[in-house]
Order: sequence, then structure tokens, then C-alpha cells
Amino acid sequence: MINIGVIGYGYWGPNVARNFQETAGARVVAIGDSDDGALKRASQRHPDSRMVKNYREVLKAPDIDAVAIVTPVSTHFEMAMEALDNGKHIFIEKPFTASSPQAQALIELADRRGLKIMVDHTFLFTGAVQKMKELIGEGVLGDLYYFDSIRVNLGLIQKDVNVVWDLAPHDLSIMDHLIAKDPVAVMATGVAHFHNDLEDVAYITVYFPDNVIAHLNVNWLSPVKIRTTLIGGQKKMLVWNDLVSDEKIRVYDKGVEGLEGVQQESLEAAHGRRVSYRSGDMWAPKVNQVEALKGEAAYFVDCLEKNLTPENDGRAGLRVVRMLEAIVHSLKQGGALVRI
Amino acid sequence: MINIGVIGYGYWGPNVARNFQETAGARVVAIGDSDDGALKRASQRHPDSRMVKNYREVLKAPDIDAVAIVTPVSTHFEMAMEALDNGKHIFIEKPFTASSPQAQALIELADRRGLKIMVDHTFLFTGAVQKMKELIGEGVLGDLYYFDSIRVNLGLIQKDVNVVWDLAPHDLSIMDHLIAKDPVAVMATGVAHFHNDLEDVAYITVYFPDNVIAHLNVNWLSPVKIRTTLIGGQKKMLVWNDLVSDEKIRVYDKGVEGLEGVQQESLEAAHGRRVSYRSGDMWAPKVNQVEALKGEAAYFVDCLEKNLTPENDGRAGLRVVRMLEAIVHSLKQGGALVRI
Amino acid sequence: MINIGVIGYGYWGPNVARNFQETAGARVVAIGDSDDGALKRASQRHPDSRMVKNYREVLKAPDIDAVAIVTPVSTHFEMAMEALDNGKHIFIEKPFTASSPQAQALIELADRRGLKIMVDHTFLFTGAVQKMKELIGEGVLGDLYYFDSIRVNLGLIQKDVNVVWDLAPHDLSIMDHLIAKDPVAVMATGVAHFHNDLEDVAYITVYFPDNVIAHLNVNWLSPVKIRTTLIGGQKKMLVWNDLVSDEKIRVYDKGVEGLEGVQQESLEAAHGRRVSYRSGDMWAPKVNQVEALKGEAAYFVDCLEKNLTPENDGRAGLRVVRMLEAIVHSLKQGGALVRI
Amino acid sequence: MINIGVIGYGYWGPNVARNFQETAGARVVAIGDSDDGALKRASQRHPDSRMVKNYREVLKAPDIDAVAIVTPVSTHFEMAMEALDNGKHIFIEKPFTASSPQAQALIELADRRGLKIMVDHTFLFTGAVQKMKELIGEGVLGDLYYFDSIRVNLGLIQKDVNVVWDLAPHDLSIMDHLIAKDPVAVMATGVAHFHNDLEDVAYITVYFPDNVIAHLNVNWLSPVKIRTTLIGGQKKMLVWNDLVSDEKIRVYDKGVEGLEGVQQESLEAAHGRRVSYRSGDMWAPKVNQVEALKGEAAYFVDCLEKNLTPENDGRAGLRVVRMLEAIVHSLKQGGALVRI
Repeated sequence: MINIGVIGYGYWGPNVARNFQETAGARVVAIGDSDDGALKRASQRHPDSRMVKNYREVLKAPDIDAVAIVTPVSTHFEMAMEALDNGKHIFIEKPFTASSPQAQALIELADRRGLKIMVDHTFLFTGAVQKMKELIGEGVLGDLYYFDSIRVNLGLIQKDVNVVWDLAPHDLSIMDHLIAKDPVAVMATGVAHFHNDLEDVAYITVYFPDNVIAHLNVNWLSPVKIRTTLIGGQKKMLVWNDLVSDEKIRVYDKGVEGLEGVQQESLEAAHGRRVSYRSGDMWAPKVNQVEALKGEAAYFVDCLEKNLTPENDGRAGLRVVRMLEAIVHSLKQGGALVRI
Repeated sequence: MINIGVIGYGYWGPNVARNFQETAGARVVAIGDSDDGALKRASQRHPDSRMVKNYREVLKAPDIDAVAIVTPVSTHFEMAMEALDNGKHIFIEKPFTASSPQAQALIELADRRGLKIMVDHTFLFTGAVQKMKELIGEGVLGDLYYFDSIRVNLGLIQKDVNVVWDLAPHDLSIMDHLIAKDPVAVMATGVAHFHNDLEDVAYITVYFPDNVIAHLNVNWLSPVKIRTTLIGGQKKMLVWNDLVSDEKIRVYDKGVEGLEGVQQESLEAAHGRRVSYRSGDMWAPKVNQVEALKGEAAYFVDCLEKNLTPENDGRAGLRVVRMLEAIVHSLKQGGALVRI
Repeated sequence: MINIGVIGYGYWGPNVARNFQETAGARVVAIGDSDDGALKRASQRHPDSRMVKNYREVLKAPDIDAVAIVTPVSTHFEMAMEALDNGKHIFIEKPFTASSPQAQALIELADRRGLKIMVDHTFLFTGAVQKMKELIGEGVLGDLYYFDSIRVNLGLIQKDVNVVWDLAPHDLSIMDHLIAKDPVAVMATGVAHFHNDLEDVAYITVYFPDNVIAHLNVNWLSPVKIRTTLIGGQKKMLVWNDLVSDEKIRVYDKGVEGLEGVQQESLEAAHGRRVSYRSGDMWAPKVNQVEALKGEAAYFVDCLEKNLTPENDGRAGLRVVRMLEAIVHSLKQGGALVRI
Repeated sequence: MINIGVIGYGYWGPNVARNFQETAGARVVAIGDSDDGALKRASQRHPDSRMVKNYREVLKAPDIDAVAIVTPVSTHFEMAMEALDNGKHIFIEKPFTASSPQAQALIELADRRGLKIMVDHTFLFTGAVQKMKELIGEGVLGDLYYFDSIRVNLGLIQKDVNVVWDLAPHDLSIMDHLIAKDPVAVMATGVAHFHNDLEDVAYITVYFPDNVIAHLNVNWLSPVKIRTTLIGGQKKMLVWNDLVSDEKIRVYDKGVEGLEGVQQESLEAAHGRRVSYRSGDMWAPKVNQVEALKGEAAYFVDCLEKNLTPENDGRAGLRVVRMLEAIVHSLKQGGALVRI
């Protein structure tokens, strides 16, 4: 039985606590939050857990094996360091840390102490992302051409982070998971309409090896909510619309292929180009609709029990933080190309 | 009566010829194309027009007042120079020319000779763009925040121009018309998957004064066709979806406003931010559904008869060509910021 | 303070209990269910309420003012009679009763005892239905022409009721509320593919005075879920799509009007018809997104406190049951016209 | 070479003439219309055809093999009789005739004279209907459960026919083609809001053997245009949306099946019902996008050349007319069941 302490019972914490409580092999023994109202709500839903006002008591409690840190990113490093120091595994909200040196320090400490870090890249546990991973992994799409994501809505303009740190971690973690290559460089443009230096609209390009390009469009000022990703491959292409309840993923038997082995001269004479086109059926595979966090909680418990390294470990969290840093660096330099 | 000669009867030429023929005050007296099949089709639909195999005969014909040049961009400069030299007004396909010096030379010659140039930025004459121009002009949207356009589909990979020169002229001419400010700088990223140096996917940012940002997403490798533009303003925001038959434009009474006059301390204490949100009705104004080219042809004739300078004159064409050049320049320099 | 007892803690009961608990002026003092698991779940969420295995204890408890009966329709009559006999107001699931005589008996008893009945026609408390009621009430649509509703999905084929008793109560209660006229006659067609006499597909026409027609399409065998209602009026027409999160209601300035006062001969000569057409803007009014049951619970408490007759009282419930009976009668008679 | 005469050059006639002219093995030798403007338009597009003001000259011309009658239904019988009398094959607009005796008389005469009749049920030649026919024919859907069609829009209120005669022939011909069974009975409800006895809204149920039910919703007073058909089968179900440009047909691996071979008692004990559910992928097969009338014209010529009986022959036309008569009969009798 893995005993879990949850720190932070605001917007997302209740979901984390509930899912760990409902996971076989785990129980939530303590919930920490400095807000009395939050603790009162938590106690109603978790009558058997201790309610703790000072999060330090959770970090140090001898009966706790792992701590779920569900607090603002600015607090992550300090809490996580203390948790690891006290021999606790950690499950931590995304983005992992406020800077890459912080992430590296945590990874090193965890490695030294033989502890696990899982960064809550929840989307990786949705049926949609798992299906896309499967399609790419099995070669259904062929070599990837591009990954193009739009995540826009009328969002809360925040005063401490820009739209990139707020929205892009989702897309960056999904992109990192699906493309599974190390990015080469990043470029970003954007504008801040309300707070100096905090962009509310941003456009991000990420270059990968083998001519793979990724693009992220994040915007807090859109009148409509859009959550759409296009992924183009040599063999097939897909559209993921996360806002529809059915048929979230549509796979198109459409594409363009270079005709590399073909005698070039004759083709150009004939058609003026060296590519061929396909246009066939569309197919919407059934997508698992289980709550993503439920699967992620079970996976965390499984990794602890079997001593496995999670896919969404500290290193995955670090990769996302590094891209966030590079994006902000590019924005601050007027859109300069930033190598990673 | 304006006598018009049409050069080029391929994909778009038949539409140009038909619309000029049906415009009061104009008639198509000659159609030129080097292809016999094209001329045969043209003669069936325009039995009263001369069919001309050598376009020079159109450019020089004494009974012709204006020439519509509906040929590939590589031929524009030479044909247009000769037309102007022969005292003909010109109606010319977009993009205006293959380079900005060419455009400037044509503008100067036309000015000197007192002739008109109209560049066929057809979209400006659609009901949708006219309605957006009206909404922006009347201040319905308030100050503009951004212009974000997506124009993607499975397109013909061309071997002489990249996706930017193929698709972006539409968006650039619309953007130029609606924002009506001089852009400050351009940045573009993209990848060529098939032909060296000819991008098939590109992402373009255009910076304008007053914190207005524009972004264009053009892609020949998309499995689905998307023609969507978001325009965010201080008072209202709109979405233009050109692929639906009804309700192409949706105006949202949603927005974010800075609270500049308000005492800052108290607000931050209360809400932690300095902006206010609105969320109200949506409204889809009726959009004129007349064929855009029909209105444009009538406007051309009107400009000639009344000696008016068209909005989509050579200078408008030059502005688009300059942006295309800056975009390609940025792409070639790995996404550098290119000032205009 | 209104003390409420809830009977039935299966699928819908938890929502009823939670909303009454959260309503100012009310509290849930007891929850009854014969199933131990249900009671256990209820006790976790309502630690201050009594858990009761025998519902009779709820019906008779001296500290209870009103009983919420959230059980299958077959049990409604007996429970409601006993509740009224014991002087309790009742809030009861739809459909109100299994037959109209049952409904009449309950109404009479409640009237005699001075007790309130509210039938849980939840949809009347959605922002969408309230907005449509407002639009019709203010004459925005003008005289109504038709009400056309589609409610189809892949549904659980039930073995004791047909698709009409399962799905149509929603549409019938909405139609009754919006049209606010007594129907004249009903006709229904349908087919049972799985259980004898229990239709899984049915089409219902309801005739109203003044040439108003309503049609309901209910189907358990649809591969897609559709919840769309068209309402046509003389001045405007609307479409209600309950499956979209935004812009659920779209009001069209489109229509056809008879030209009754106009000299007929001349018009026919001119146009060949006696009607005129309008086609203008579309408008999606902002719709309140509060949970419907929350408003309904507050309204129930308000009606008890202020001794008001609810709009969705026993008589409204009876009207729906009468229509259900007439529909089934028509189905059994091969689609005969059944006068109401 | 089949020589064709076209009578009627109004809305649809130009399409018929153009497609026959472009069909290999056919040519349009004459076009008849009593309107001078129509003839002028026809002569521009068909400079090699005779223009004829009196349609009788077309019906009698010795050089004409087949006559395409593209005129209002009220004129069909007389023209078609005369054409057959003169030994011409006929291609005739839908609905075939204004009454079933007229249709029968034409069929008999054509049979006696060895002539072909093809009724222009154009939809049968669309890629969408052909794909559905293929799917049903190959058993992909399994046994059919229902056919449910919606064809509504803001239509021209006509003064001589009701919405059923105007819109339902499309659906009836498609239904007849896909279900390929003789209907047993028809029931229809509707209302006339503008012209006495000419319904502008109608709902039609058609009963087929083996528990197959069809339903048609036709409406001239809808603010939105809908062209959607659901077809439910035992193995799969499909949705045909004719208003989208791509993915018009979506086949769902969803369904309900009766468990007939299974021991009933135990199942009921376990699940309370005797059916099983499937929910899997969705699949949108590629649909041929060729112009339907082009294929139909080629098929007509083929049937004449090879002496084949068209699928959409006079008997198919008669079946549709009989259903139209039964529907109107049911409407006039207040929705009575009318056996066919």
C-alpha cells in the first residue's frame, strides 16, 4: 500500500486526491493546504485522511511514501527538494519547475536517493494521445512532416506568467511524447497587450531533426475555444479535435509522397513535379474515454511498486521546462532562433 | 464603353472574361492564349470576341482600352510594361509581380502615362471581407489586438514557388486591407519536405505598430481544408470561416479590457489582475453573397470611367509583394526578423 | 427552513440531494434507498443526513416537510399518495405517473390537503429553455408555425417502457411550456425491433390550435446523438442545439409571411405567390449556464415558502402523462389520430 | 450516335442539355422552349443545335431518337405520350407524372413500342447514394432497421404543389433504391400555413416488411438547410450529410443486436435485457465526386445502345408517384394509414 500525501487542494488538487484515493494499492493519508475552506472541503470528501495546515507536516510525515505537489510552479522547487530530502517520491504538477537548473537539481537528488519523480503531464494519459502515440509508433502515419497545434480561448490574463507558461506546457509535453526526438531550435513571436513582458498571444515554432517542424498557437484573447492539432505524415495525416465528444481523432488516407526512386527527368516533363498524391477514406478510431488522471495515478503507483521509471519522469519535465525557457528567450530577443 | 482584352484563358481567365463581359459599360473584344484548346473554349463562350494566339496582338490592338493579364506571375512584368507602353490600363492577377522593383517600375510608368493598375485581390470584393472592413471601420471591434489566419489544405506542391507565394497573397491582401497600417517587421519559419528551398509549410508573423500582431499559417500538407481567420479587438472579436455557406462571420461580444484609469492597488488586492472580461451575445451579420469578381469588374470599369484610383491599385499590389519578399527573406535567414 | 427527505439515490437522486442541500432555506434531513451501496455513497456526501433503508420512514417522518421522490415511475403513485397522506409536499421525477388517473388522484389529494406538487421537468430550468420562453413570450418569434424536435442516440433498450416513455417526456414538457396551448390531437408511428410492443424508434405529431404543429423524433438506435429543436415563427425562427457548449440557441431573422391584406390578383400576376420572404442576420443570445436543477430546487423552496403554485406542478405533469398515453394509444392503433 | 432533343430550358434543362452534349455517343440536336430568352441562352451554349419554339417539333423530328422532358410535372403526361407515339425514348424529370394512372399508361405504351423510359432520379447517380447502395448490398449494414431523412430549408412556397410533391421525390426515390422492398403502408401529417391544402411542413412514415420503417421530414419553413439521413442496420449504422463537401457518409461500428439464440432467463437475470451493444470505430469511405447528371446521361445512352432496362425506369418513377399519392391521401384524411 502506497501512502500518499497531497499538498494543495485548490482547483486541480481535489482531482488528484480523488484519483489517488480510488487507485488500488494507494490511499491518501494526508491533505495539506494553508486555506481553511480548502481543508474543510477536503475533509468532507476524504473523512479518513488527516487535514494539515502546514504543508511541511506532509513532507516530513513518517507514514507517507509519496507526495503529490499540486501548487503553483513558483513553490515546486522548494517543496520538492524537501520532499526528496525526506525520502518521499513525488508526483508534481506541470510545469515541473520554474527553471531548468531547478529541474536538474531535483532529478539529481531523486537519482541519488533512489526516488521517483512523475510530472503530471495529464494529457499523455488521455485516450486521444495514447491512440496517436500508438498510430505513430506502429508507423501508420509514416515519417512525420509536421505537428501543428492550436490552443486558444478567452483566458484569464495572469500577472505573473505569460500565455506560453500557462498554455504551452500541454502541447509541449504532448509534442515531446509523440515526436520523441530532441528539438534543435525554437523561435517564438508574440505580443503583450495588457502587462509588460507577459505575452497574451504567442506563436511558437520548434525545429526537429529530419525536417520535422512543430508549431504552437497559444492565445488568451480568442473569442472561441479551439483545441485542434494537425499531424502530417508521409503515409497518413490526422486531425485531433479535443473539444468534440466523439471522433476526437480523424485519420486521413491523404498525403503527398516524394518519388525519390523514380527517374526525375521524365516525371518533370510529364507532370512538372516530383510528388504523388493520395486521397482515400477517413477513419476515426475508437478512443478510450477513461479519465486520464485515473490512469496516471495507477501508473504512478505501478512505477513505485515495480521500481519502473515513468515516461513522464523528471527528465520529461525538464525537457518541457527547457523548451519553455527557450521560447521565452526567443520572445525576449524579438523572435531570435534559440538553439536547444 | 470600355473595351477589354483578356490574356490567359486557363483556370481563372474564364471567370475574368465572363465577369467583364457581363459588366455594364464593358465588353471583351479580344481573348489571347497560346493554347488552341483554351481559345476554342473561349470562342464558344465569347462568340463575339476575337480569339488571338499571340498575346502581343492584344497588347497592341488600337480598339482595346484595358488589358486583363491572367497569366503566371513570372510573365506579369513584361506583359504589363508592354500594355502600359501601348497606353492600356491593366487589370492583373495577384501577386502583382515577381519582385518589388518590377512593381515599382510598373507603378511609375502607369503614373506617368495616366493609366490605372488594378491588382486582382479578389477577396476584397467578397461580402465577408467587405463586412469585416465595415465592422472595423465603424469601430465595432475597437482597437485591434491581432489578426490570425489559417489557410491550409492538401495542395499541389509546386516546383517554382513555395507555399507562401501560392497561398499567402490572399491573406496578405486581406490583412493589408483590414488593418490598414504599414507593417513594421516580418518573421517566418517553415520547412520544405519535397523541393529544396520551396517550403510547403510556413508560419508567418507580421508586426504592426500599436502592438497589433498578425499571423498566417499556410500549409500544402494538411489533410483537411481550413480557411479561418480570428480577429481580436478591444470591444469585440470575430471569427471568419470562409468554408461555411451561411454565417461566415461571427461577431462575439467577448473581450478583455485593460483597466487603465482604475486605481491599481485596490484592484490587484481584489482580483490579482488589471483587466476586465466581457462575455455576451454572438451575432452573425448577413453577408452579401454576390460573386466577388463581378463587383471587382464593375469597380474597375467605374474607376476608369470616373478616373478614380482603385483601393487595390499597384501600390496595394506592391505592399503585398514587399511582404512576400520579406517573408521569403526571413525564411532564407532561418527566421530572422526582417524590417519592412 | 424546509426539511427535505429524498427517496431514491441511484442515478439522478445524488443530484437532487446535492442541490437541495445547497439551496438556501432547505436542508436534506433524510435519504432513503433500499440499496446498501447507495446509502453508503449518500452518507459520505451527506454526513449530517439520516440514512434510511425503508422509504416509508421518510414518508412518515414528523421532521420532514417535503419529499423528493426520485424512483422509477412505476413506484410514483403509491409513494406520492402516502407522502401526501402524511402531509408532505412532493417533488417528483418525470414522468409524473404511469397513468393519467393516477396523476389526477394525486392532484386532487394535494389540492384537498393544501400541499404542493412539483414534477421534475428539469429542462424548464435550463438557460436555453428559459431564453426560448422569453423570446416567445416577448413576441420575438411572432405567431408560432411549428416545433420540431429530434432526440436520438444509441440508448439502452429497456424492457418495460418504450422509447416514447423514456425520451419524449423531455420534449413534451418543453413543448407544453413553450407553446402553452392545449393540444388537439396526437398521432404516432414507430417500430419495435427487439421487444414486442416496445418501440425503439418513434415519430410523434401533435396538433395544436391555430395551425401549430409539433413533431418529435425519438430513437434508441441512432449511431449519433442529436438534440436539436427547430421552432418556426412568423417573425423569426430558431434552432436549439443542446449538444454545443456555446451558442445553443440561434435566432434567425428569416421567415415567410402571408400577405393577407394585399390585393391578391396583382401579386399573383407579379410573383405567382402570396407570401414574402425575409433573410437577415443570425443572433445567438447569451444563455445562462447555471445548473438547471439548482434553479429548480430554489424555485421549489420558494413556492413552499411563499405558497405559490409551481409552473411545473401536478397539472403540468398530468398534461405530459396524457400526451404519453395518447401517443402510445396511437401507436397501438397503427397510427390513428387520437384526440386529447 | 443517339440524337437527343431537350424540351424545357429553364432551371434544370441547361444541366441536362450540357451533360447529354458532353456524353460520348450522344448529341443534342434540338432544344425546345416557348420562351425566347431561354432559347437565346440555349443557342449560345449549343450553337450546333436547332432552337425550337414549339416543343411539338422536337417530339416529331425524324432525326431525334430520344427526348429529354425537363418541364413542370403537369405537362409530363401529354408530352411523354406524344413522344412515345412518335417512337422516341424518353428521359423525364421527376416526379414522373402527376398521377399513377398516367405513369401506368406511359409504361404500357413504352413497353408496347419497345421504347425506354428513364426518370431523372438524379440522386441515384451521386457518389453518396451509390456508396450507400454498395454498403447495403454487400451486407455491411446488416438487416436494415430504419431510414430517417430530413430535407428542410427556407423554400419557395409554391401555389400549385405542396412541400411533399416538391421535396419528397428525392427522398422517396433514394429510399426506394436503397431499401429495395415494396412499402406496405404510408402515414403523413402536416400543416398548411399559407395556402389552403398545400402543406408547407410534412412528416411522412413509410412502413416496409420485416419491421423496416422510413421517415421523411420535409419543411419549407426551416431557418437552416438540413440534408441528413440516418440509416440504422443490425451490423452498422450510417449518417449521410449531403451538405458537407468531405466525408458525406459516416459509417459507425455501433449497434444493438437481439440475442436470439441465447438462453433468455439467465440473461434477463444478469442484465435485464436481451440485447447487446457495440461501439467501435467510425469510418468515412471515399465518395466519388463526379457530377451525378453526367453519370446518369451516360447510363441513359448506354441503356439505349445495349437495350437495357434502366434501374430508374418508368416503374421506379411509378413507385415514387404512388407513394406521393398515398402520402397526400393520408394528409387529406387527417393522417390515416394508407395501404399501398
